Amino acid sequence: MSALTIALDVMGGDHGPSVTVPASAQALSLYPQLNLLLVGDELQLKPYLQQYQLFNHPRVRLVHASQVVTMDDKPAYALRHLNDSSMRIALNLLHAGEAHACVSAGNTGALMGMARHVLKLVPGVERPALTTSLPTVSGGKSVLLDLGANVNCTPEHLHQFALMGSVVAESVHGIARPRVALLNIGVEQNKGNEEVREAAARLAVDARVNYTGFIEGDALFAGQADVIVCDGFVGNIALKTAEGMVRLLSQSGAQTRSPYANWLQWLLRRYMRRRLSHLNPDQYNGASLLGLRGIVIKSHGRAEICAFFNAIEQAIAEVDRCLPVQIAQRFESHTYTGA
Amino acid sequence: MSALTIALDVMGGDHGPSVTVPASAQALSLYPQLNLLLVGDELQLKPYLQQYQLFNHPRVRLVHASQVVTMDDKPAYALRHLNDSSMRIALNLLHAGEAHACVSAGNTGALMGMARHVLKLVPGVERPALTTSLPTVSGGKSVLLDLGANVNCTPEHLHQFALMGSVVAESVHGIARPRVALLNIGVEQNKGNEEVREAAARLAVDARVNYTGFIEGDALFAGQADVIVCDGFVGNIALKTAEGMVRLLSQSGAQTRSPYANWLQWLLRRYMRRRLSHLNPDQYNGASLLGLRGIVIKSHGRAEICAFFNAIEQAIAEVDRCLPVQIAQRFESHTYTGA
Repeated sequence: MSALTIALDVMGGDHGPSVTVPASAQALSLYPQLNLLLVGDELQLKPYLQQYQLFNHPRVRLVHASQVVTMDDKPAYALRHLNDSSMRIALNLLHAGEAHACVSAGNTGALMGMARHVLKLVPGVERPALTTSLPTVSGGKSVLLDLGANVNCTPEHLHQFALMGSVVAESVHGIARPRVALLNIGVEQNKGNEEVREAAARLAVDARVNYTGFIEGDALFAGQADVIVCDGFVGNIALKTAEGMVRLLSQSGAQTRSPYANWLQWLLRRYMRRRLSHLNPDQYNGASLLGLRGIVIKSHGRAEICAFFNAIEQAIAEVDRCLPVQIAQRFESHTYTGA
Repeated sequence: MSALTIALDVMGGDHGPSVTVPASAQALSLYPQLNLLLVGDELQLKPYLQQYQLFNHPRVRLVHASQVVTMDDKPAYALRHLNDSSMRIALNLLHAGEAHACVSAGNTGALMGMARHVLKLVPGVERPALTTSLPTVSGGKSVLLDLGANVNCTPEHLHQFALMGSVVAESVHGIARPRVALLNIGVEQNKGNEEVREAAARLAVDARVNYTGFIEGDALFAGQADVIVCDGFVGNIALKTAEGMVRLLSQSGAQTRSPYANWLQWLLRRYMRRRLSHLNPDQYNGASLLGLRGIVIKSHGRAEICAFFNAIEQAIAEVDRCLPVQIAQRFESHTYTGA
């Protein structure tokens, strides 16, 4: 195994190889130490590999997979019957030590189930969490988790998410003693449901976490916390609401009859896109499945080339920081030791 | 009692009478049939009433209240000990038939608790729901509920919210057979938590509701549904996330050295504000507390004059449509009868 090898499920996502292959080519040209295991249907992949000069590329290995996990496949079905799928084989390669990380844009539930089955959890973690780093107004990053891996969370789960999120904020974003907040419907102590209130009580007495209190939805991008913890149902809806709003505002307005007005509108739209660009979902594509004994990155199913490339970069960054090892150490330690 | 009388808790909200009194003056000048019962501390109110020519106004009656519910008061405390608060007296006036509706920008939990205690629920409704009408991209409106009145909801509660939301969409927005959707983390049948899935099963077999399926957070403003149902925890966070995003994008950028660039920026900000204006929280301020035997409108605590005025207008619209009567009729009927 070379310095840095990533196994890619090239068949996953809405666009499959037409997005994953050019994104791979981009990553290979920018990261000279990077090796890729492209897992997918050989016949389907070949024309793309030829088109992007990845056929017989010294740092690319094509690994054939006869099956594909579709978006409609239930996790249990995928786990039982799709053992020769590109997703499963990519995870197997990671587990076998042939790759340092795995990236897929496929079915989230199936990826979760398979990853948990193949890789197993870090001791102390009861549930893996899907997490992403949101851009903040101040130009920083906030780690948000969970994004939909767990629809029902106990206070213990939320507590564990806070620990894992803190490790990401420290080691990936370089923040010493990251501020951890719980997403809630008010900032007062008595607000919210039982799970959130009990999680707050647990976090307040854990010296490994720099817990700062509740924050509300309108502070999500405000940079008030470095780690924002919530259950997967809430996190998924909050993130998608924000994404929908950005997409809505980047859409073009109606054309008018005046060429001057049209020009002004074009100018304004361009400006708006630029102002919005750092909040664009494409820019922060690549959600990590934290808590596993291996690095698994879930790309958005809709991801375009640039977004899928970002997911590969996310994997590289986590390999660089040995994230699973750090998370395991944090769960072993009983006192907070800093970044 | 005259044609249209509204009881206002003028002490509520972050700004109190400095916002509620000018908003009242605006409403009185625009609605000649409107009478207002301004409930609050007489001494504190007088200067404001004089300033806005509402002192001895023929359509204004000042009702003294010696107490105020603060944002920190717990609902149970407010219910037991703040019987002479402006909020409580405004609700009492509604209950006594002296007003047709009540508007307050005060503590949501206290307002909920007091309103439920004073007015009681419509038969068949187990929990009142906080609801607002979101503007959609297509220029329409979607009714969103619950917004935070209920942090934990059973499938039965969500079902009842769907019924109440349908009545609002029909009678306030004039939509025949409004499309009802459940907010979820995916559109496939197996997605989400048990509550949402069971609510979906109930709605699918209720002929009174035109249930169309799940929608995700990014479709919140897309106009895909006329009524969007979720529990109060999720609804509150989704709405506030969207609000935070709009506020964030309306903020000004950094000043540059070039006067031309600054002018362009100013122009662009102005355009952006206009594009965003119909999504501005101020424009849809005024959340209805549905399911009560009376019309209660909760204004945002941060509401400015224009926003509080919108809340008064919301009350007027609901009085016009006899909303509580219509909701009661819908819960009595066993088959859907249309708008």
